[in-house]
Amino acid sequence: MKINLRTEALEDLVARVLTTNGMSGENARIVAAVVAGAERDGARSHGLFRIPGYIGTLRSGWVNGISVPKVTDTAPGVVTTDADNGYSQIALAASRPLLLEKLKRNGIALLAIRNSHHFAALWPDVEPFAAAGLLALSFVNTRSRVAPWGATKPLLGTNPMAFACPRRNAPPMVWDQASSVTAMGEVMLAAQDGHAVAKDVGIDAEGRSTTDPKAIMAGGALLPFGGHKGSAIAAMVEILAAALTAGRFGFEDRSAQIFGAESSNAGQSIILLDPSVTAGAAFPARVDELFSRLMSVGVSRLPGDQRYAARRRSERDGVFIESKIYDYLRSLLPPSDPERSHAP
Amino acid sequence: MKINLRTEALEDLVARVLTTNGMSGENARIVAAVVAGAERDGARSHGLFRIPGYIGTLRSGWVNGISVPKVTDTAPGVVTTDADNGYSQIALAASRPLLLEKLKRNGIALLAIRNSHHFAALWPDVEPFAAAGLLALSFVNTRSRVAPWGATKPLLGTNPMAFACPRRNAPPMVWDQASSVTAMGEVMLAAQDGHAVAKDVGIDAEGRSTTDPKAIMAGGALLPFGGHKGSAIAAMVEILAAALTAGRFGFEDRSAQIFGAESSNAGQSIILLDPSVTAGAAFPARVDELFSRLMSVGVSRLPGDQRYAARRRSERDGVFIESKIYDYLRSLLPPSDPERSHAP
Repeated sequence: MKINLRTEALEDLVARVLTTNGMSGENARIVAAVVAGAERDGARSHGLFRIPGYIGTLRSGWVNGISVPKVTDTAPGVVTTDADNGYSQIALAASRPLLLEKLKRNGIALLAIRNSHHFAALWPDVEPFAAAGLLALSFVNTRSRVAPWGATKPLLGTNPMAFACPRRNAPPMVWDQASSVTAMGEVMLAAQDGHAVAKDVGIDAEGRSTTDPKAIMAGGALLPFGGHKGSAIAAMVEILAAALTAGRFGFEDRSAQIFGAESSNAGQSIILLDPSVTAGAAFPARVDELFSRLMSVGVSRLPGDQRYAARRRSERDGVFIESKIYDYLRSLLPPSDPERSHAP
Repeated sequence: MKINLRTEALEDLVARVLTTNGMSGENARIVAAVVAGAERDGARSHGLFRIPGYIGTLRSGWVNGISVPKVTDTAPGVVTTDADNGYSQIALAASRPLLLEKLKRNGIALLAIRNSHHFAALWPDVEPFAAAGLLALSFVNTRSRVAPWGATKPLLGTNPMAFACPRRNAPPMVWDQASSVTAMGEVMLAAQDGHAVAKDVGIDAEGRSTTDPKAIMAGGALLPFGGHKGSAIAAMVEILAAALTAGRFGFEDRSAQIFGAESSNAGQSIILLDPSVTAGAAFPARVDELFSRLMSVGVSRLPGDQRYAARRRSERDGVFIESKIYDYLRSLLPPSDPERSHAP
């Protein structure tokens, strides 16, 4: 059975759930928008599926739900933000005005976030910049889960990298790729749904190839995409997200030892570029020329297109969620919350 | 039979060859250093193997051997350089002082090169920045050779991306990766040596998988590494190297129609970051911690290490080159050049 909700109502519900479980109202609103946005866009593995992880992590005390990020104006082109051991998106929101000011003045700017937790997809962080006409690159490191090329033990994180590019009369082209063949979220979902994974996805605790998602999660490792090339990208992400930000490497993260904690204390960097500085106002049209040519040789859709299609459906028809998930969310509300006893 | 030369002598010989074939002395010196450096570092596919391509391209008139790059101070963080239809490395050399000045002031800087040809490896462009303590990313697009994920015809270039990172007591970690499984240089070398290539490397003109390097070169296409993820990276490189720089996309390049022309009129971008701004003086030591951990789980060497080992051997023992290649190089010198008739 499914429940139908408007995205705004879902966002509001998630915000109340997070507030009840240790987040400040302002911080909960930012994280709830990301979670509800993923659900709205059909990105299930980063939507409501993540709520138990957020709650477990908040309740364990591992993450700071009432974080107050400290934004520092480090150089004319650089903002450095200490996330106060809270979620990275909150640090990004606090840093955005100064970052955009620097970008506008210089044509390129860097945001380096440290002491942060990133438990969401990366595309929501960069999409708004591209929607405003900018190019954005972002890098996040996570706890060790990926065996570097040539190794049989995990050392690097799944370390996603995202790229967002404005278009002329269309929403931005945005991709967000784990450095592993598959994100751990997908492996978790496969384990939950009882599915096997492809044979290049991971290895078990003995370093042997396996298709069992549970064996990968239990002491095994994910494998980098594209062999040594994806492994090099994973290491680059580790450097740009952790070393550059003076944050923690994935192998230094202690979350695996904290009961209930699912996010890593790590780092994130964002590089923004203003393409109008070098390419003028024609940039979005030029990019569209490239995209039409991609379509003309058989590419069926651009990165992000599936999410935008799901978003349009959700905006028209509302978001459909499993009633058992809806009941779970309601059970996390305080007894005083009217939605706890009466569904809207 | 092999000839033994000091790197400096090889560089000087290559410079004279290039000058005799249409390059200004200053420009020839820059390109010769890159070619001889690749040969010194054991990077055969980008060393002397490329000389016929340089000569053919220069003689065809497709590339401007006497280019005078036009460097523009576009924004406080951005340098834009028109390479005057010459080699990209010459534009980079001309842009370097202004780029470093901007980097020093802002902590991050962008160099956007357009109207340029890049017929070399990308690591020589970024290694010196990392040797000076900086992080460097670079992107170059090339003529269409790669079928995007889901397509059966070439559209994207092999589009290399490079990343260079300083270390504490070691030369920088530098990688330089084509967005294809294999660089076209390797496929060309396989064709020359009569070897097959692996079966994920490319497709033939009918879009079928093939291991024949000649079938890939004759109307077929290379495949992106890591499936859709490498394809997304290839498209990102096309955007950052061509659209961002107001340069030409690979599919707009006309080099395939010019007899003898092997390099594309395309673009290049370089992003520089000063890690001391965000991470302080500890950055190289932090990076070394990551690298020791990579080694501890079984990684046998870091990207760049093989080149540095070859470089040390060449510095000690000289560079060994096939005598037939040496004779070919001498045949390209003017009759007045003493080395043409008398080997040193």
